[in-house]
Amino acid sequence: MSDESSFISHLQVFATHPAARGLTDDAASLTLGGRTLILTHDVIVENVHFLPSDPPEDIGWKLVAVNLSDLAAEGAKPSGALMAYNLSGDTEWDRRFAEGFGVALARFQCPLIGGDTVRAPLGSARQFGMTALGEAENSPGRSGAAPGDDLWVSGTLGDAGAGLRIARGEISGPQELVEAYRRPTPQLELGQRLAPMVSAMMDISDGLLIDAKRLAEASGVAAIVESIDVPLSEALVGLMGDSRETSVAAATSGDDYELLFTAPRRSRRAIETVAEELNARIQCIGLVEQGEGLKFQEGGRPLPLPQSLGWAH
Amino acid sequence: MSDESSFISHLQVFATHPAARGLTDDAASLTLGGRTLILTHDVIVENVHFLPSDPPEDIGWKLVAVNLSDLAAEGAKPSGALMAYNLSGDTEWDRRFAEGFGVALARFQCPLIGGDTVRAPLGSARQFGMTALGEAENSPGRSGAAPGDDLWVSGTLGDAGAGLRIARGEISGPQELVEAYRRPTPQLELGQRLAPMVSAMMDISDGLLIDAKRLAEASGVAAIVESIDVPLSEALVGLMGDSRETSVAAATSGDDYELLFTAPRRSRRAIETVAEELNARIQCIGLVEQGEGLKFQEGGRPLPLPQSLGWAH
Repeated sequence: MSDESSFISHLQVFATHPAARGLTDDAASLTLGGRTLILTHDVIVENVHFLPSDPPEDIGWKLVAVNLSDLAAEGAKPSGALMAYNLSGDTEWDRRFAEGFGVALARFQCPLIGGDTVRAPLGSARQFGMTALGEAENSPGRSGAAPGDDLWVSGTLGDAGAGLRIARGEISGPQELVEAYRRPTPQLELGQRLAPMVSAMMDISDGLLIDAKRLAEASGVAAIVESIDVPLSEALVGLMGDSRETSVAAATSGDDYELLFTAPRRSRRAIETVAEELNARIQCIGLVEQGEGLKFQEGGRPLPLPQSLGWAH
Repeated sequence: MSDESSFISHLQVFATHPAARGLTDDAASLTLGGRTLILTHDVIVENVHFLPSDPPEDIGWKLVAVNLSDLAAEGAKPSGALMAYNLSGDTEWDRRFAEGFGVALARFQCPLIGGDTVRAPLGSARQFGMTALGEAENSPGRSGAAPGDDLWVSGTLGDAGAGLRIARGEISGPQELVEAYRRPTPQLELGQRLAPMVSAMMDISDGLLIDAKRLAEASGVAAIVESIDVPLSEALVGLMGDSRETSVAAATSGDDYELLFTAPRRSRRAIETVAEELNARIQCIGLVEQGEGLKFQEGGRPLPLPQSLGWAH
C-alpha cells in the first residue's frame, strides 16, 4: 500500500458521511436545503503539477481549470472559489499569477469568494490550492457504469502529455501542445448537458487508462478501451505519427482534463446531439462489460496493458 | 504595501461577488437556496503556524480548530470539511495526524467530505489546508460595530503565546499553556448563541490588539481596549505575574482562537446569560467610539500602543 492509500484509509474510517462518497471520488456531494452542492479541493505543487518555468499566468489558470474540471465531471455549475496561495516572494510573479487566476475565473463564471495567503519558508516548493463549489441538478458520480454501456471521452488526448515533454525540453514540438499542458479547459458546459444522460462520469486528469480503471472499479464492472478510437489531435499526430505508440502515449499521459463517461447505447443519439450543439468533440472509445478491471485492445484484438497506466500524483 | 496586501489588492479587483465581502473577512458568506453558507479556508505551515516538534495529532487537531474558529465567529454550525494534505513521507506520522484530525472533527461534529493529497518535493515545509463550510442563521461579519457598543472577548488570552515560547524552549512553564498553543478550541456553540445578539464578531487568531484594530477598521469606528480587563488565566499569571507586561503580552500574542465581539449595552444581560448557560468565560474589555483606529488604556489612562500589535502570518 502506498503512503497515500495508507493515509486515505485512515481518513476513510471516519469519513462516513454520505457526502464523502467514501473518499473514492474527486468531489464531494452535499445536499443542503434541497440543493445538491458539489465541492472539490485540488492542490497543484511546483515540479509535480507545474514547472517553475511555466508563466505564472498559466499556473493561475491551471489552478482554476483543474478544480473546475472536477465540477464539470459532476455536471455542476460553479458557485464560488476559495484559494490557498503561497506568496512567491516576488510581487510581480504574484501579480501575474493573480491575473491568470482571475481571467480563468471570469472565463468560467466562477466568483472568487475567499481563501488564505501564507508564506512558506525559503526553499519550499510552491503550492497552490483551490476549493471550488458548484450546484448540480444531476450528479452522476463514477459508480453507475453498467454492462453494455458505451465508454466515451471528450476532446483529444495526449496533447498535454506531449506539451509537458516539450516544455521540459525533452522533445521539440508545436507551442499548441505546450498550451494544452499549461491551459487546460474544464468541460463545464458539456458536463452539465451530459450529466442527465450518463451512467458515470469523471474527468481524465491522470491518464485515460488509469482513470478508466478507476471508473470501472468504482462501478464494479470491466472497461474495454479500443486504442484505434483514442482521439488524437492533428498536432499530436503531426509530431508523433499515427501509430500504436502514439495512441498508447495518449491513453497514458495525464493532464488532459477531458471527460470520461459511460452511457447506455440508447442515449447515443442524444449524446451526439448535445456535442454537436456545443461544437464539442466526443468519441466512443470502448464499452463496459461484466467483470472487473481494464482491457485494452486494437481493432478488437487484445493489447498488453502498458506498464504505466498514467500518472499517480 | 506588503507583498500579501499587494497580492490581495490584485484579487480584490475581480472578487466583486457579495459573498467575497471584498476579501476583508476570514470567511465567505454565500446565499444558496435561501440558506446562508459560511466558507473558510485556512492553511497551516510548518515553522509558521506549528513547530516540527509538535505531536502530529496536535497538528491535525489544530488544522480543524483554526478553520472551525472562523465558522464560530460567523455563528455557523459546521456542515463539512475538505482537507489538503502534504504526505510527510512517514506513514506513522501521517497516521497520527489523521487521528488528531479525526478526533477534532468528531469532537466538533464536522464531517470530512473530501480533499486532496499531494507529495511536496523533499526539503519543502509541510503545509496543510482545510476548507470548512457551515450554515448560519445570523452571520454577523465584522463591519457592524457601532459607537457606544461594548467590546467583549471570550476565554483567556495569551496562553497560547506563552505556550509557544515554552514549546520552543525559550522559557519554562506548565504544559497546560503548551496545550493551549497546540490544541485551541473553536468557540462554536458560544458563537452560534451570540451571533443574533452581536453587532460584529471575529476570532482572535493574530492577537487581541491587531484583531480589534481590524474589526474597528472594517466597521469604520474606533476601538478602546482596557488592559486591566484583558482576561488572564491563573497559569499565565502564575508564570508571568499579574503585571502590565503580562497584559500587554496577552493582548499581542496570537493563536488564542477566542471570540472578539461588539454588542449594544442593552444586550449585556442577554450575553451574560448565554455565557452562564454554556459555562463560558466572557469579559467586557472595552468599548467602541466614533472615530478610527485603536486606543489602549490602563485604568482609563492612555497607554502607548505596543510596537507589535500581534502576528501577521
